[in-house]
Amino acid sequence: MRVLILGGDGYLGWPTAMYLSRRGHAVALLDNFVKRRWEAETGGRPLIDVPKLPDRVRAWSRISGRDIAHYDVDLCDYASVVRVLADTAPDVIVHYAEQPSAPFSMIDVHHAAATQSNNVIGTLNLLWALRDHRPSTHLVKLGTMGQYGTPNIDIEEGFLEIRHNNRTDRLPFPCQPGSFYHLSKVHDSHNVRFACAAWGLAATDLNQGVVYGIETDETKLDPALSTSFHYDAVFGTVLNRFCVQAILGTPLTVYGRGGQKRGFINIRDTLRCVELALLNPAPAGEYRVFNQFTEVFGVAELAETVVHSATRLDIRSRIDHLPNPRVEREDHYYNPVGSGLTALGLEPHLLSQELVGSMLRNIGAHTDSIDRAAILPVTNWRRELPATPLLARG
Amino acid sequence: MRVLILGGDGYLGWPTAMYLSRRGHAVALLDNFVKRRWEAETGGRPLIDVPKLPDRVRAWSRISGRDIAHYDVDLCDYASVVRVLADTAPDVIVHYAEQPSAPFSMIDVHHAAATQSNNVIGTLNLLWALRDHRPSTHLVKLGTMGQYGTPNIDIEEGFLEIRHNNRTDRLPFPCQPGSFYHLSKVHDSHNVRFACAAWGLAATDLNQGVVYGIETDETKLDPALSTSFHYDAVFGTVLNRFCVQAILGTPLTVYGRGGQKRGFINIRDTLRCVELALLNPAPAGEYRVFNQFTEVFGVAELAETVVHSATRLDIRSRIDHLPNPRVEREDHYYNPVGSGLTALGLEPHLLSQELVGSMLRNIGAHTDSIDRAAILPVTNWRRELPATPLLARG
Repeated sequence: MRVLILGGDGYLGWPTAMYLSRRGHAVALLDNFVKRRWEAETGGRPLIDVPKLPDRVRAWSRISGRDIAHYDVDLCDYASVVRVLADTAPDVIVHYAEQPSAPFSMIDVHHAAATQSNNVIGTLNLLWALRDHRPSTHLVKLGTMGQYGTPNIDIEEGFLEIRHNNRTDRLPFPCQPGSFYHLSKVHDSHNVRFACAAWGLAATDLNQGVVYGIETDETKLDPALSTSFHYDAVFGTVLNRFCVQAILGTPLTVYGRGGQKRGFINIRDTLRCVELALLNPAPAGEYRVFNQFTEVFGVAELAETVVHSATRLDIRSRIDHLPNPRVEREDHYYNPVGSGLTALGLEPHLLSQELVGSMLRNIGAHTDSIDRAAILPVTNWRRELPATPLLARG
Repeated sequence: MRVLILGGDGYLGWPTAMYLSRRGHAVALLDNFVKRRWEAETGGRPLIDVPKLPDRVRAWSRISGRDIAHYDVDLCDYASVVRVLADTAPDVIVHYAEQPSAPFSMIDVHHAAATQSNNVIGTLNLLWALRDHRPSTHLVKLGTMGQYGTPNIDIEEGFLEIRHNNRTDRLPFPCQPGSFYHLSKVHDSHNVRFACAAWGLAATDLNQGVVYGIETDETKLDPALSTSFHYDAVFGTVLNRFCVQAILGTPLTVYGRGGQKRGFINIRDTLRCVELALLNPAPAGEYRVFNQFTEVFGVAELAETVVHSATRLDIRSRIDHLPNPRVEREDHYYNPVGSGLTALGLEPHLLSQELVGSMLRNIGAHTDSIDRAAILPVTNWRRELPATPLLARG
């Protein structure tokens, strides 16, 4: 298949590109590298510098013998998006090209507006470009489990059969997102659903849990092929941060009581899920949603797993509870359904002591590169506690 | 109360300003006049030219003896919004400042992006400005009944008690909006709900039906105080268009079978609903939703009402069914609940033969000003039928 990956320079975009290229798909990438600028601005650089995209693509060509095309294009630039579609004639588009951080979107009005503008208008441009130029292309868009919030009922996959006053309908699952980032993904989902209904486009929304892991079969082939590892308070995710804190010997910082439950997924399974979606496309006119996670953990429980794994490597670590910078429930029901991708053939890589141990060893080899100042949260969801100006952090 | 009205130059904003000013509130207006530019671009000028805002305000001062402040400011300009909040110190903000047309939002990618960018980022700026500078201000925001779409269950006011797998929760009512305009209002509602939950803001979302009518007690005081009357395919609403078509002696154009049901409300009741919301504010931290309509009509039924009223004035008219330019159900269940505003004291002005007769007489006095070319739809929701370029219409 001809696959166009939007956000192809990112944590998931680049490993997805190599994974699909290796399986014989013709892969092209689009990225405008704004994420690297945002990282520089917020002090959230990855643990190990990753090569620039042209160098990554060259390394992949040298190592695998396969070529990947790439375009320096902003999704908000409609004319350029149309040009890339004409150039690449994709059968499938995998859309990762969004600002992915909840704390970033809560820094101030400008970061909130940049997040919603980039994500919502970028995706809107893409939908119109597909309508006018490639309506048969299957859009595989990354959403997030965070769109649902933490309702007191089971979380179905995108839709819910509702009975009310003796009548029934199948309606979009009610969402209660908890940041302007998560809100932007809900806005996207509504726009995509409408475009499928009105224009007959075909789309799969992959509502993904928190991704962890740094290695895939392809990143392991050569250091030049590695993907970015974020552990900072803005772009890092929770397991990564806990591992880095264990290596530093500083307390693992759990936000609040730590009873917050979330869906999690190994980066290897992300790649497989995307492959399953593209091999089993949604039919024309269908907006399909899968919940893309393999396990549910509480945040404190995850911290304990890291402490335990660290102990096995003779690293002593402990847990601290910080005042929660986010507004979220810290003790709640959480039962998402994730049967769609399993039915298509997903065989999960579950989180194991071995995997956490290997992450710890990986990080331990780069201890000197860790920026300790970037780990603790500086952005607060609450009005009473104004956000610390980011620049003050140095 | 000190009331700041956003979109104070508009069809509803200006009559609301006079209504509240007359009742002793200190009223200030904000508008950037982009709607007048959009009208000029799409050929959707009001039937009777309305004076510029400074002239309207001067006329109101002369006639009523009351002053209204006004600001030429774009809601997307955060610094200016903050300045207006500081200047006016509002107890209540009434927010009409959005691109209000579904067909406008469906013209092409640029109009879709302009709609979502203007509406969503404008409201987002407002929320942050309230957070940082006026958190105790009550936000009264105009939403639309179109946010819900046409589900096969009763439409509650913003939220729904859902029972699923033996558990229950009160969740946002699932929305299925049918244009990029309606989608922008759903995005807004999600953003406002979150801002109330995270920051303790107080907001009332008035999900309004289709407004009809041209006269209020204040517009009748002097021709210089009249509000805009739109009948064109872009900014006109259905009852207005039918009345204009009856006066012209051209067929009343029903889109499709005409079984589409919608909530309707008289402009006088809009003003009263806004007043009821501001006199009974939502408490801090609450996002409250009212469905603001007084009657439900089918589109074909409404056309028949106009034909009947016209006959009583010796005007012969007939109905034509056009291929529906929109993607929507033409025969569906529709039962919205609207008890919140009734409980606060709303006494509806229902649609009567007298009211339609008075609209027909009003329009008849300006027959020569009607632009016949602006009435029929040029924008199509479907992919197969590309939109006619607007400029080609002359």
